[in-house]
Amino acid sequence: MTRVRVDLMISLDGFATTTDQTPEEPFGQDWARLTAAYAQTRTFRERVLHDTSGEGESGVDDDYAARYFEGIGAEIMGAAMFGLHAHPDDTDWRGWWGEEPPFGVPVFVLTHAPRPAIGFANGTSFDFLTATPEEALAVATEAAAGADVRVGGGPTTVRSFLAAGLVDQLHVAITPILLGRGIRLWDDLRGLEDGYRVTTEGAPSGVTHLTFSRDARA
Amino acid sequence: MTRVRVDLMISLDGFATTTDQTPEEPFGQDWARLTAAYAQTRTFRERVLHDTSGEGESGVDDDYAARYFEGIGAEIMGAAMFGLHAHPDDTDWRGWWGEEPPFGVPVFVLTHAPRPAIGFANGTSFDFLTATPEEALAVATEAAAGADVRVGGGPTTVRSFLAAGLVDQLHVAITPILLGRGIRLWDDLRGLEDGYRVTTEGAPSGVTHLTFSRDARA
Repeated sequence: MTRVRVDLMISLDGFATTTDQTPEEPFGQDWARLTAAYAQTRTFRERVLHDTSGEGESGVDDDYAARYFEGIGAEIMGAAMFGLHAHPDDTDWRGWWGEEPPFGVPVFVLTHAPRPAIGFANGTSFDFLTATPEEALAVATEAAAGADVRVGGGPTTVRSFLAAGLVDQLHVAITPILLGRGIRLWDDLRGLEDGYRVTTEGAPSGVTHLTFSRDARA
Repeated sequence: MTRVRVDLMISLDGFATTTDQTPEEPFGQDWARLTAAYAQTRTFRERVLHDTSGEGESGVDDDYAARYFEGIGAEIMGAAMFGLHAHPDDTDWRGWWGEEPPFGVPVFVLTHAPRPAIGFANGTSFDFLTATPEEALAVATEAAAGADVRVGGGPTTVRSFLAAGLVDQLHVAITPILLGRGIRLWDDLRGLEDGYRVTTEGAPSGVTHLTFSRDARA
């Protein structure tokens, strides 16, 4: 049974985005602080940086990082996460991740301005859809062929899937910093916890891993 | 050396107050959900309900509940926490806690409308001050005679002490529910984490215990 999964990193005050990007620092400094523990993990180094040295932290943060990559058959993301908002005029834009995007599965990018699909040698593809969350999930579930579907981000896209009741497992890594600005993950989701089991696990890094889960309905 | 300590319970979306109070349910239903794990602890039953049966949960939540009561020599709270806003015309109001308030130390209530001090047989007293956070802390530190001072709440009072850089240890119990309304603990505190060590510990109840601590400056 396909489950719909979400993994996000947020600040203690609930912000899933940072706002200090500049042309010189396209991700800003806050993003590095928000993702610092994840960036130290062995899994991140292997899967995202393609660093095969075996270096990096193991432990709680790495356990969650590794689970992130397990059992996913397709991904859905918003246009902003793919980079369409930051690069609106670049019709050759292929995403932030270079020629080995760390997905390895079909990725469906939600946008009001579809463009031709893109494929990579490692099995990643980007297809551009104008669709509701339910419609996108139907397409992604078929592509996943029994494996799970991830809603990758950003927070606005995730919130639309949470508000529609479509998410079976939500893992949030809460970094103990206060950003004070950005997009809040939790806004307008009063009562989200209904119907979920919730577990929490602290990591030595200070990051809290919170997981909402329920049986799959997809 | 006196440390300034804060302990609060907040929802996952950062709200430290609830808003569903009615005349029939003066605390509302959300408050019970926010404090459910704490209300189950053995320490809460003993110290707040005066239940000496020894029943109640032990474990992570109880460990923090017990530490709450250790080493406090004086407390500071806002007028709303004492109940002056809910009972503005009741000049005989003695707080929410009956004749055995669970403090046992001098409590300083910040208010723009001071009233005569109140004393209880168990060592609790309420003194009413019109003072800045720094001024109130000076008074409370002297009363604590070397023990710690707690800033008890509510969230607006706590935030004024946090914003002034006066808090040495902040323990927040995060209940995994989304309230969607109320007073946010974390607003306008960007960068609060600077200078603190931060640890996190998850409880089987789903509550996350987050602690910011630094060496005392008082």
